[in-house]
Amino acid sequence: MRIGAIEAGGTKFVCGIGDESGRIEDQISFPTGHPDQTMPKVIDYFQGKEVEAIGIGSFGPIDIAHGSPTYGYVTTTPKPGWANYNLLGTLKQVFPVPFGWDTDVNAAVYGEVKWGAAQGMSNCLYITVGTGIGVGVYAEGRLVHGLVHPEGGHVLTRRHPEDDFAGICPYHGDCLEGMAAGPAIEARWGKKGHELPEDHQAWEMEAFYIAGALTDTILLLSPQKIILGGGVMQQPQLFPLIREAVRRNLNGYVSSNSILDHMEEYIVAPGLGQQAGLCGALALGLSAISNKVSSI
Amino acid sequence: MRIGAIEAGGTKFVCGIGDESGRIEDQISFPTGHPDQTMPKVIDYFQGKEVEAIGIGSFGPIDIAHGSPTYGYVTTTPKPGWANYNLLGTLKQVFPVPFGWDTDVNAAVYGEVKWGAAQGMSNCLYITVGTGIGVGVYAEGRLVHGLVHPEGGHVLTRRHPEDDFAGICPYHGDCLEGMAAGPAIEARWGKKGHELPEDHQAWEMEAFYIAGALTDTILLLSPQKIILGGGVMQQPQLFPLIREAVRRNLNGYVSSNSILDHMEEYIVAPGLGQQAGLCGALALGLSAISNKVSSI
Repeated sequence: MRIGAIEAGGTKFVCGIGDESGRIEDQISFPTGHPDQTMPKVIDYFQGKEVEAIGIGSFGPIDIAHGSPTYGYVTTTPKPGWANYNLLGTLKQVFPVPFGWDTDVNAAVYGEVKWGAAQGMSNCLYITVGTGIGVGVYAEGRLVHGLVHPEGGHVLTRRHPEDDFAGICPYHGDCLEGMAAGPAIEARWGKKGHELPEDHQAWEMEAFYIAGALTDTILLLSPQKIILGGGVMQQPQLFPLIREAVRRNLNGYVSSNSILDHMEEYIVAPGLGQQAGLCGALALGLSAISNKVSSI
Repeated sequence: MRIGAIEAGGTKFVCGIGDESGRIEDQISFPTGHPDQTMPKVIDYFQGKEVEAIGIGSFGPIDIAHGSPTYGYVTTTPKPGWANYNLLGTLKQVFPVPFGWDTDVNAAVYGEVKWGAAQGMSNCLYITVGTGIGVGVYAEGRLVHGLVHPEGGHVLTRRHPEDDFAGICPYHGDCLEGMAAGPAIEARWGKKGHELPEDHQAWEMEAFYIAGALTDTILLLSPQKIILGGGVMQQPQLFPLIREAVRRNLNGYVSSNSILDHMEEYIVAPGLGQQAGLCGALALGLSAISNKVSSI
């Protein structure tokens, strides 16, 4: 079975072909430009590839409400050309196959549930910390959409006691994304994250903010696993700092062995590595074939 | 159809009989004492009532993991006699009927979905603010259990700039419950909430904390409705203060009419009033009959 997968990111698009085992047999990637330039490249890639379905995990906000007149659209992004752009519809006009359609982070969490670090689990979260911060939520065996879709990158965390940085979120200033996404690290310290030494105070502070958000998601959703991906999480020193801060925050309140005794298996990197998003899109495509798309 | 319902609260138990329309035809209530005193009263009440199922919404933490050796137990409560008490099993031994079993707040959110303010919705939250703070989560048509069950009352909200109260949560000090549950109001102001005038600063502060938690749940879960119950929420002046603070926090970021234009229908009191918990337990009992208990 040949399934198409599109990881439609705000910075780059990745298109690939895979099968029902989650194996990606071919893929390409290009920067995200204006849709007039970007979408023809997507269409070119899949022409003649004879895929049986295509799954898309897209940057957002997007409309994923079945029955909505703008279902399949990117909605309010400031990215030139993409606001109110019918991404799904544009591809549907060209390829008469079933389509899966969800947020990039919901795709990633779904990929991890299907073939990655959360295989077989019914409750988990995928959080990407990069240019922005996004949260994919999988609860009781379903991807959570709700009223719009989760936008957990903007939760209001507590301020680190030694941090006087104002935050850079245009909506909230010092929300999680405003304080802890890659551009916030650069704005606060005057250097990109990967230019800062491993023992720089930046990382303890970064872990503080991420752990604050994780603590609240653990309390609100009781996930079986939390997966942290994205460019900023390529700094491996963050994981132990985050786990320790979460443990300190919870202070023994959630009495589960997974949290009390196995935190290093509870808060983890993606099992699929950088492929979580693309594999997740593949999984969305597979679900579209089995007509399960409305139930995931 | 006659269904039994038990709202097993930390302060009082309510037992009732209802039918498939959600109508409660009889109920009694008594204070929660040691299980040796309390459980015989529960059993007495249902003896001879010939119910076809019983649903229980219980104070916690409780074990709701199907297949766990302590499924049906109250687990780590400090309440005398209730720690590691097999609440469900004790009743199952006496009444050979199907049982529904979940947290008190999950019961309440389920009741509201079935017959109350969130009828027909697939994503909503019930938050009770009283002696403690609890959060019931209903996502994509299912009650969320996860690893243990949500304990959203303990999320770490930001501190109000004019508040120097240390908080009274024995685990976290100034988590939401530590700052905003009924006993926190009394400890901070030296009076019970209902003794404070409507325009007292306490209410703006209370709204600040509740709105902080609501903001994060909206961003993380994108609920279609948020229902606020419990003793503290009997102060009607809180609702407009909370809605205004949530609107300020979100600052237009979540672009949904429900939030931007209809906040007064988005954050609401329980449609079932004080009966949300008991009706929810009834709904859990009904689900147990139709063998749907494993899928809710």
